[in-house]
Amino acid sequence: MSFPKIDDTHDPALTSWVSGADGHADFPVQNLPLGIFAPKAGAPRAGVAIGDHILDLAQCAERGLLPEAVRDAVRGRTLNALFALPSADRLALRRSLSRMLSDGKHRESIEPCLFAAADCTLHLPAAIGDYTDFYVGIHHATNVGKLFRPDNPLLPNYKYVPIGYHGRASSVRSSGVPVVRPRGQRKAPDADAPTVGPTGRLDYELELGVWIGQGNAPGEAIPINEAAGHVAGFCLLNDWSARDFQAWEYVPLGPFLAKNFHSTVSPWVVTAEAMAPFRIAQPARPEGDPAPLPYLWDEADQAQGALSLTLEVCISSAKMREANMPPHRLSHGPASNMYWTVQQIVTHHASNGCDLRPGDLLGTGTISAAEREGYGSLLELTEGGKTKVLLPTGEERAFLEDGDEIILRGRAEAAGFASIGLGECRAVILPAK
Amino acid sequence: MSFPKIDDTHDPALTSWVSGADGHADFPVQNLPLGIFAPKAGAPRAGVAIGDHILDLAQCAERGLLPEAVRDAVRGRTLNALFALPSADRLALRRSLSRMLSDGKHRESIEPCLFAAADCTLHLPAAIGDYTDFYVGIHHATNVGKLFRPDNPLLPNYKYVPIGYHGRASSVRSSGVPVVRPRGQRKAPDADAPTVGPTGRLDYELELGVWIGQGNAPGEAIPINEAAGHVAGFCLLNDWSARDFQAWEYVPLGPFLAKNFHSTVSPWVVTAEAMAPFRIAQPARPEGDPAPLPYLWDEADQAQGALSLTLEVCISSAKMREANMPPHRLSHGPASNMYWTVQQIVTHHASNGCDLRPGDLLGTGTISAAEREGYGSLLELTEGGKTKVLLPTGEERAFLEDGDEIILRGRAEAAGFASIGLGECRAVILPAK
Repeated sequence: MSFPKIDDTHDPALTSWVSGADGHADFPVQNLPLGIFAPKAGAPRAGVAIGDHILDLAQCAERGLLPEAVRDAVRGRTLNALFALPSADRLALRRSLSRMLSDGKHRESIEPCLFAAADCTLHLPAAIGDYTDFYVGIHHATNVGKLFRPDNPLLPNYKYVPIGYHGRASSVRSSGVPVVRPRGQRKAPDADAPTVGPTGRLDYELELGVWIGQGNAPGEAIPINEAAGHVAGFCLLNDWSARDFQAWEYVPLGPFLAKNFHSTVSPWVVTAEAMAPFRIAQPARPEGDPAPLPYLWDEADQAQGALSLTLEVCISSAKMREANMPPHRLSHGPASNMYWTVQQIVTHHASNGCDLRPGDLLGTGTISAAEREGYGSLLELTEGGKTKVLLPTGEERAFLEDGDEIILRGRAEAAGFASIGLGECRAVILPAK
Repeated sequence: MSFPKIDDTHDPALTSWVSGADGHADFPVQNLPLGIFAPKAGAPRAGVAIGDHILDLAQCAERGLLPEAVRDAVRGRTLNALFALPSADRLALRRSLSRMLSDGKHRESIEPCLFAAADCTLHLPAAIGDYTDFYVGIHHATNVGKLFRPDNPLLPNYKYVPIGYHGRASSVRSSGVPVVRPRGQRKAPDADAPTVGPTGRLDYELELGVWIGQGNAPGEAIPINEAAGHVAGFCLLNDWSARDFQAWEYVPLGPFLAKNFHSTVSPWVVTAEAMAPFRIAQPARPEGDPAPLPYLWDEADQAQGALSLTLEVCISSAKMREANMPPHRLSHGPASNMYWTVQQIVTHHASNGCDLRPGDLLGTGTISAAEREGYGSLLELTEGGKTKVLLPTGEERAFLEDGDEIILRGRAEAAGFASIGLGECRAVILPAK
């Protein structure tokens, strides 16, 4: 398994001459996430986050400051071309950026390519060819399963198949784009027929997003011991869900309009290379669980295929913002609560010859912890709307209301290394049209 | 409802100076379907089929022969830009092409832009942003439902919701690209655990494909009386399916690897304008069925929202081809066996604000007739593999075998008009890797 290796770019003692970068919660010089940004009155272009600044990669390329292998690839309006390169080229870019942003001798040539992040707009990092959402958060699957089937929450295929389904690529939006409350069909359990209207059970789902790097040829599988080489990086993903639409529409072909109105991703791609220090063993399967089938089994993947990443969900209601209250944390828990590793997801997806392409987005599915404090959706926190969540204003929530803003965050930590973050994934709910 | 109107381009007396076009089974001058083709040793470009020839639209544009509104749009390697134009512009293109290809005075200027279709390769007509597959063939839904739930084949939502799910855009291929038999997980009903291997239940699905023209803004619905204006045209779609994978993986989130290894479309887009004479009333709902909800109801759509189109499936086994036998017809039936119109599908899809984009592909789902001769999949024809189909060679089929080729065809007919066809959608099965 070709996981990126730890090198001197991960050195916790490394500092940057960019003011505010050292000790930055998300983007110290050890992170160097990639994204697409537009400065005021400028066109979208590739950039890298460093503290509260963004380095313009296109401008750096024009000035001949980047490795030759990536120069053309960073000039587009998306990162797809950069994702399509061998990961060795992105590693070369990382090493070059690390040097330029840490060693003061580069300051003069680099500083003109820096923008204050606050003055920039962040866009989707890639043109998403296909977006696939998985269901590997086993506690989420169990919690949701219990609502429908108390005695038998997990279906028989769950521990053999990394369950996934295709989502909607067109409606994936970058952090900050408001979510319009969707309209649709829902049927009350005791009603004879459905009615149409704004969803009354709007929910978030806390997920990890995976950006695909190099793809596979149509008809060719991706062996599990090569899967890590196809992952360009990670982001946060909020898979907004209309639970009432979902319950009515989802048999027999799965969720559709309950999900495809809007999905939000954090705009920065934290590269697989940046995550090298944060690899941990995949949690052991409970005794009695079947071993993964051979095509999904790799010893190295089990040893270091999971991520030491803590995820959290916060809410900020309109009333809270009026009262200048900080966002209220709804839940937090480790991203390792996944029954399958990212590599197993990738290999399973391509196992029938399905071609993944650079810039494709995979979602893990909601990642919940075993305990209530780590539940990754309101559906779980409120037991399907029965137990309301109390906000600091005294407001209660069974599901989301107009004006509510949901903020996802993720933080990678490992002893002896500088902590890095995924940045924010946020969006506010607007009333239905 | 703004359905395209019948005009003099549909005149059955219209003839073309292109040899072989008059009386052509699929592409007489009344059809003029759009596609992307590559001549020998040439790059892919936009073209229009006329008889056994293809007119190079990019070359016509360069020579100033096309309406100004479409000149830039036909110069790309896909039809997406042409689909993004108002349908009035595609109508202008159609009228111009009809004049140039029927009136002999244009022959001298046009003839150098013609290629023999036999010398050309046909590509996917558009870069597909998202591909959605529906389930509106009510006899198919009933037949398949019976296999699982003999007493209650249709689920309660079927007559309210045009059921659909997202498919895989990356694995949609043009006619002629062989299908590699996929490998995957399947579990025999009496087995304790699944095994992995090539599918033993490979099937086709006969569907109509719909190419989206102008899209909608994110968050904005498409009213039913405007839906027809968002349809650029039609094709045939074979939604290849691995039934053993499907049965094992599809709960609770729907089909995934059972479908996303390959889907085949016919390469020519028969435009909504070309189909104007072939509009018929939507079949009346059986007595007792609920009326469509208001957002899906439009009188004009009910009056002329269906298509007078006969679809057929043929098979050609390797043995049949060795013996020079013609393909054997497995089934045929009318495309109007849809519980929802194409317009209702489009409106439902966007009803939650989901944005459709030019070049998106919608599949209707398998279209079966009520009678066995019109069943659109082997799953139905063989009752889940129990009743084998006999081929003229004496071979039998429960499901598809390596070397089998499946050919879909579609023909539009209406009294007083020249019949037009959708062209062929074909692919042969290769052994698993």
